[in-house]
Amino acid sequence: MEEYRFRLAREDDLSSLVGMLADDELGRTRESPGSPLDGGYLAAFESIQVDPNNELVVCESGDELLGMLQITYIPYLTYVGSWRALIEGVRVSASHRGQGIGRRLFEWAIDRAREKGCVIVQLTSDKKRPDAIRFYECLGFRASHEGMKLWFG
Amino acid sequence: MEEYRFRLAREDDLSSLVGMLADDELGRTRESPGSPLDGGYLAAFESIQVDPNNELVVCESGDELLGMLQITYIPYLTYVGSWRALIEGVRVSASHRGQGIGRRLFEWAIDRAREKGCVIVQLTSDKKRPDAIRFYECLGFRASHEGMKLWFG
Repeated sequence: MEEYRFRLAREDDLSSLVGMLADDELGRTRESPGSPLDGGYLAAFESIQVDPNNELVVCESGDELLGMLQITYIPYLTYVGSWRALIEGVRVSASHRGQGIGRRLFEWAIDRAREKGCVIVQLTSDKKRPDAIRFYECLGFRASHEGMKLWFG
Repeated sequence: MEEYRFRLAREDDLSSLVGMLADDELGRTRESPGSPLDGGYLAAFESIQVDPNNELVVCESGDELLGMLQITYIPYLTYVGSWRALIEGVRVSASHRGQGIGRRLFEWAIDRAREKGCVIVQLTSDKKRPDAIRFYECLGFRASHEGMKLWFG
């Protein structure tokens, strides 16, 4: 049985992470995975790394990265002052889908959010990804809200 | 014509802000607006205030607070490294609804997100608030995503 480990991403993971982001139905057109890596990725990685309220989490097996997600911890006044965890940028390597990696990544992230005292974990999922929405429902998420986006063109 | 000003919230705004959060169909049951204010609010306020990626914005007229929202700026690897603005906790004082304050607050927040280099502004809106959803659509938001939440019970 394959052994999976979960940890925060390091700078030397970056090209694997960008590869995973690009190898996706919706990501294909919006990423730039070539070498050398676009400087925008490194700048974003550094912004995430210096911010204690942002964590980029990876799942690895041996020295191969199999999955990733980003957690943002956000303090709010609502609910008598509370923290929420926002999850985005979830990807599992194309060659390792259907093996429960996404579920284990999420369970790890949800446990971490709970340890950090969050009262809610939330995410938005593109309505064009019905399988992902069902997956999140199986994890206990409810689609109680509309996820609304405004793009700067 | 009433003059509105927009600025970041200060600690001495806190009880007015909590009053606004509580004076809401869904907020009524989940806030604790009595005096002295529950310490949870001050702790959350301080966490917001020390974090350069979180801003609590208020609209005031004279010395009265009329509206509020919170912006969180988040760095992501996606889109070749990009920043997004997440908006939550939007409220307009019950006695001042229907006067365009929400729209002006949002326009201010959207301009600020653009100045900070964000490529997307996003939010989740409870499906039980159809008027709010229409309001966001009028501002240019599209309900392209499901907004999914997992509560720790």
